[in-house]
Amino acid sequence: MLTRIDHIGIACRDLDKTVEFYRATYGFEVFHSEVNEEQGVREAMLKINDTGDGGASYLQLLEPIREDSPVGKWLAKNGEGVHHIAFGTADVDTDSEEIRAKGVRVLYEQPRTGSMGSRITFLHPKDCGGVLTELVTAAGPDAH
Amino acid sequence: MLTRIDHIGIACRDLDKTVEFYRATYGFEVFHSEVNEEQGVREAMLKINDTGDGGASYLQLLEPIREDSPVGKWLAKNGEGVHHIAFGTADVDTDSEEIRAKGVRVLYEQPRTGSMGSRITFLHPKDCGGVLTELVTAAGPDAH
Repeated sequence: MLTRIDHIGIACRDLDKTVEFYRATYGFEVFHSEVNEEQGVREAMLKINDTGDGGASYLQLLEPIREDSPVGKWLAKNGEGVHHIAFGTADVDTDSEEIRAKGVRVLYEQPRTGSMGSRITFLHPKDCGGVLTELVTAAGPDAH
Repeated sequence: MLTRIDHIGIACRDLDKTVEFYRATYGFEVFHSEVNEEQGVREAMLKINDTGDGGASYLQLLEPIREDSPVGKWLAKNGEGVHHIAFGTADVDTDSEEIRAKGVRVLYEQPRTGSMGSRITFLHPKDCGGVLTELVTAAGPDAH
């Protein structure tokens, strides 16, 4: 069951500059940053609020490290902006299988590794009203 | 101070069909629906989670009621998808003036009426890394 907006993924060309924009404009600070080689991105997670399910909601700022990464190709086509939205669940495996059974295309056979050791999968935007939609299970109670 | 992701605004061509997608796929239910004549939209708010500041995070599904409304023009150009993101604050007036003073274009001189009697304003996406960004103050403690 999806119990929170886990994050909003925002594609940018210059991560440092975008982090500084969010800090200077709104006071949002970097909670975590990492390079995800599999996804082909450098990223910064800005924690915005805690959520009623014991998790949190973040902005996820994404800069491609390769032009041929999914985010790199998306940026070339669309320019900077909201790349995806993500819902948090305690059990991404069960939820993604149930959603697949309803006829929505799930992009990975098995969940892969996302931010902060989470397990993630994506749903095809053409099956979700144009919205690239991610499902996330956090790594553990301390990893929100 | 911005203390939560208040909502993600999603533009769609058929509100009833989109509401049904979110219900059938994820189990999200309509918390509130209304027509906002000023914004030129029919909308449904799906409450996803409570937030640590005493508010909540929603998906806001938006169908234009006029082709020449901002959402109608956006849909004609971009197709269905994420239209904007919104941060919640206890004081949209002060926050929007502070942000304006930093050189970010605020689209309204004074906040206008948003969902559920809230007061809202928007920041120019070209000043926000391609992200149309809304600031929201809920109508009252019971209106989250």
